[in-house]
Amino acid sequence: MLRPFPRGLVGAAPAPRPYTLSLHPVPTLTAVNRDEYAHWETVPTRWKDNDLYGHVNNVVHYALMDTVINEWMIKTAGFDPVTSPAIALCVESHCVYKAEVSFPDPISVGVRVGKLGRSSVRWEIGMYRPDGALLAEGHFVHVFVDRNTRRPVEIPGAIRAEMERLAA
Amino acid sequence: MLRPFPRGLVGAAPAPRPYTLSLHPVPTLTAVNRDEYAHWETVPTRWKDNDLYGHVNNVVHYALMDTVINEWMIKTAGFDPVTSPAIALCVESHCVYKAEVSFPDPISVGVRVGKLGRSSVRWEIGMYRPDGALLAEGHFVHVFVDRNTRRPVEIPGAIRAEMERLAA
Amino acid sequence: MLRPFPRGLVGAAPAPRPYTLSLHPVPTLTAVNRDEYAHWETVPTRWKDNDLYGHVNNVVHYALMDTVINEWMIKTAGFDPVTSPAIALCVESHCVYKAEVSFPDPISVGVRVGKLGRSSVRWEIGMYRPDGALLAEGHFVHVFVDRNTRRPVEIPGAIRAEMERLAA
Amino acid sequence: MLRPFPRGLVGAAPAPRPYTLSLHPVPTLTAVNRDEYAHWETVPTRWKDNDLYGHVNNVVHYALMDTVINEWMIKTAGFDPVTSPAIALCVESHCVYKAEVSFPDPISVGVRVGKLGRSSVRWEIGMYRPDGALLAEGHFVHVFVDRNTRRPVEIPGAIRAEMERLAA
Repeated sequence: MLRPFPRGLVGAAPAPRPYTLSLHPVPTLTAVNRDEYAHWETVPTRWKDNDLYGHVNNVVHYALMDTVINEWMIKTAGFDPVTSPAIALCVESHCVYKAEVSFPDPISVGVRVGKLGRSSVRWEIGMYRPDGALLAEGHFVHVFVDRNTRRPVEIPGAIRAEMERLAA
Repeated sequence: MLRPFPRGLVGAAPAPRPYTLSLHPVPTLTAVNRDEYAHWETVPTRWKDNDLYGHVNNVVHYALMDTVINEWMIKTAGFDPVTSPAIALCVESHCVYKAEVSFPDPISVGVRVGKLGRSSVRWEIGMYRPDGALLAEGHFVHVFVDRNTRRPVEIPGAIRAEMERLAA
Repeated sequence: MLRPFPRGLVGAAPAPRPYTLSLHPVPTLTAVNRDEYAHWETVPTRWKDNDLYGHVNNVVHYALMDTVINEWMIKTAGFDPVTSPAIALCVESHCVYKAEVSFPDPISVGVRVGKLGRSSVRWEIGMYRPDGALLAEGHFVHVFVDRNTRRPVEIPGAIRAEMERLAA
Repeated sequence: MLRPFPRGLVGAAPAPRPYTLSLHPVPTLTAVNRDEYAHWETVPTRWKDNDLYGHVNNVVHYALMDTVINEWMIKTAGFDPVTSPAIALCVESHCVYKAEVSFPDPISVGVRVGKLGRSSVRWEIGMYRPDGALLAEGHFVHVFVDRNTRRPVEIPGAIRAEMERLAA
């Protein structure tokens, strides 16, 4: 279950690209096939994403999951978080960190739908650095609930139809 | 695996206390025994912790884990994140959300050590609202690495000794 | 207008207290009389408040202003940000930084009302470290607007009455 | 000094664009000439940038200033925040908010150097919405200090030379 940072591979780190700040180069891992993610966004980092250790803090990865998923729901699936009677609440999230990245490097975020239930959807996410290294993998479970009662409701049909196009 | 917000119990929500803002009262769950957490901190929320849905955003829970664990390591276990040759990096985190909470409610965070390895420690965390409701449960895995090489090292003895006092 | 960090006074820095982490001790300034602030909250910092330079990032000070002011409005002045027809929007903010502070040090925040208009209120804020050093001074202007039209409205009478008790 | 949201112009709000979520349309203001900013970045917003009121919280604007300025210093002026003996600390910041914007709208940030001193630089910033509306104007003062002593030092020559190209 525990996946520590890899031993003995530091010498294999890719050369930093001119436009990035590679504070702590970590070797590329290739556990996940990037082709399996159906939707991609490249998200820039912010100065304050870096913590005392000079790398993007572990909390930020969840903010990126939340952002890329909701942006897709709004722009592609037509979800309106202000007016929709059904809203999507996060009931579970998880992340395994494989490498470090630092501002001002952007992060490429790939998303697919791992499991699509009646009320819930499990998003699966991979994050990559500009040098192609796998940064982190995670999942994020949304349950659609009535905005007022907070009881689970069916995923609206138009949104579900779009989600099916992201299914693994 | 998926634990949605509970159905059919909304009427049982506790009465809001005078000093809290209960935007979305959710019934108390009692899946976890609070006595099992050895260390506690009560952390106030911030205005911007609330997102568009009027509740503390799912990302914030990880910031609180990171905060309470590191504060304990600094104040109780003598860890100095600025000068210590060994630093603790997060390699995995997870959270299951059981209820909602809103600023300005504070959150009580309980922590224990679930598994203590040679280089790594698995923290287990429970978060509670002022009305006693279980808000979220999660875990957070730290690996101690050399600050410069980022290769795993043994947990320093003095810190390990303190961690053993938090063991489940 | 520009107030750089002071020269030549580093030797006068106060001794760090046992329970704080004084990464970058800076001498105490006494430009502001603490007695002039009518309301006080002590707010803990969070791990991620520290940026790459090992100190609380300049952005965080504004989050604390927003938090302490809104918490006072909710708990003391009876403001409900979810249901109130009039909401308070920030139209201007400002901060001058006099010293550094680092997690896990808490920050003491003093607040007073500098100017109370028909629709607007100017909050004046001082922030202090545990060793008593002045950390930052700022102001924050709220305009009350109708939640739906966003046009300015009068500050509700009950809230105004409480604000007058914080007037400079 | 106080600049409230404008009255009586709501009918003139621009039509929302198909790809944006205009929760709270506010008329365009034209107090500032966009041509006066020498450097531009368009920064996407994040889900959690929106606060309870459904718009990007006032604190976020400062995070964007910090981000765009530091990114320019790193990528264009060759500043390395990890190794440089001289680092740039914020000693003052200010923002006036003219309109609202909401995730997932991106924000266009224009920057110029308003005053270039021996140790300090005053950045002037304008932020715009996708519909062209002026969102906020602010300034941000950096003082270069020695990383260890925190005493002011001269702005490094290579960085100063680049800054002069952004001068107002």
